[in-house]
Amino acid sequence: MRVELPIIVRSTEIDVNGHVNNAKYLEYLEWGREEWYEKANLSYQTFLDMGLQTVTVNININYRKEAFQGDQLIIYTQPQKLGRTSYTLFQQIINQHGNVVADAQVTSVTIDVKTRKGVPVPQELTKFF
Amino acid sequence: MRVELPIIVRSTEIDVNGHVNNAKYLEYLEWGREEWYEKANLSYQTFLDMGLQTVTVNININYRKEAFQGDQLIIYTQPQKLGRTSYTLFQQIINQHGNVVADAQVTSVTIDVKTRKGVPVPQELTKFF
Amino acid sequence: MRVELPIIVRSTEIDVNGHVNNAKYLEYLEWGREEWYEKANLSYQTFLDMGLQTVTVNININYRKEAFQGDQLIIYTQPQKLGRTSYTLFQQIINQHGNVVADAQVTSVTIDVKTRKGVPVPQELTKFF
Amino acid sequence: MRVELPIIVRSTEIDVNGHVNNAKYLEYLEWGREEWYEKANLSYQTFLDMGLQTVTVNININYRKEAFQGDQLIIYTQPQKLGRTSYTLFQQIINQHGNVVADAQVTSVTIDVKTRKGVPVPQELTKFF
Repeated sequence: MRVELPIIVRSTEIDVNGHVNNAKYLEYLEWGREEWYEKANLSYQTFLDMGLQTVTVNININYRKEAFQGDQLIIYTQPQKLGRTSYTLFQQIINQHGNVVADAQVTSVTIDVKTRKGVPVPQELTKFF
Repeated sequence: MRVELPIIVRSTEIDVNGHVNNAKYLEYLEWGREEWYEKANLSYQTFLDMGLQTVTVNININYRKEAFQGDQLIIYTQPQKLGRTSYTLFQQIINQHGNVVADAQVTSVTIDVKTRKGVPVPQELTKFF
Repeated sequence: MRVELPIIVRSTEIDVNGHVNNAKYLEYLEWGREEWYEKANLSYQTFLDMGLQTVTVNININYRKEAFQGDQLIIYTQPQKLGRTSYTLFQQIINQHGNVVADAQVTSVTIDVKTRKGVPVPQELTKFF
Repeated sequence: MRVELPIIVRSTEIDVNGHVNNAKYLEYLEWGREEWYEKANLSYQTFLDMGLQTVTVNININYRKEAFQGDQLIIYTQPQKLGRTSYTLFQQIINQHGNVVADAQVTSVTIDVKTRKGVPVPQELTKFF
């Protein structure tokens, strides 16, 4: 399941170099993942009801093109890799010219809300991989 | 009670015009108020224990000078005006040259956590005015 | 000329209290003003070509309702008041239920790019008031 | 050359989950790198004078511990790996208890300001590796 979220680059997201700041991309990616979880019917509350929480443990991002104020970006999010207690989503940010602005692998683990230890990724999530 | 909080302007706080963005100043002011409440022994939890919460209802800010990366700013916060269910803090941001970068009046109301209605400002807070 | 800009509240715009942070609203307002200037054909470059720049000197904002993740907000921007070297835009943020989340008066001055002194607001801008 | 930058976690850097948001760490890292370049006497202008610019192409960050409001963090930055036209800085964020909050490898390339193509890392920078 590949989910897309369109956004427009706003003035306050531009840094002194005239382009979107490298940290801002991680916000864009988070917005994209929120959209993915929503489409997957996996809200924060749904995980809590299973006694689980997901925690981001690694983000590996490639910056490929600059983005500018007014750019129309699409953030794509899709499942990539499944471990026992971890899973990786692949995300791409594409601009209005079809260029890849950035891509990233975002790895999370599922933990038990009480013990705070890693537990197997639940079937509600593994089914998408 | 006038409380000061020194900060240094960081790269990601600068916008495309090469100076601190107007919205960022409101973050600086919030950091300054947090410092004031801490010095006043009035934490979020302390208010909750009284069944109260404070809600910002108005900010009136004057932008007087630009601020730049590396600037050493001091955020001053002090009580200014007391109403029945509201109170106003006066804040100033001063740079390393002694210039006023911005000043603001920040008005909050105290509300009952349950009814969400305005209630008289508690004595723990009025004593500073 | 009243211009509207629709936005959706994103996860990273929510603070520890579970609602949009007070500083974030000033970013929303700036996005709205950018939209207004664009519709008015008054880009940053257009002002520069006249030897002018606009500088925000005061923002007076009322916080009226909380905003939450996923809220569909519209930022309205319109001319309000005209001085000799200054002008005030009135802005409102309305949520999907028709409630006013915040409103603000934003006052700017037009300055000469070289002398950095205030100069009369140009006719290209006064005609909207 | 290992450079350290102490910071304090501020209220507006905390997200709805009560801890520092994952994107904010990339701002902290940028602040740390700015400090490193300054200590290395390699300002943005110094690179420009050589006809060069540095561009971040990859950030690989591990999130290891949560950080909270008021935490006293130190951001450590040091050279790690040198390529022909690229170089990698290693960064760590350590909290007041001595725990690693996050660590990251940040890879940049040096480009010619005019051609925008990768060029060999200059000796002014390679000498630190």
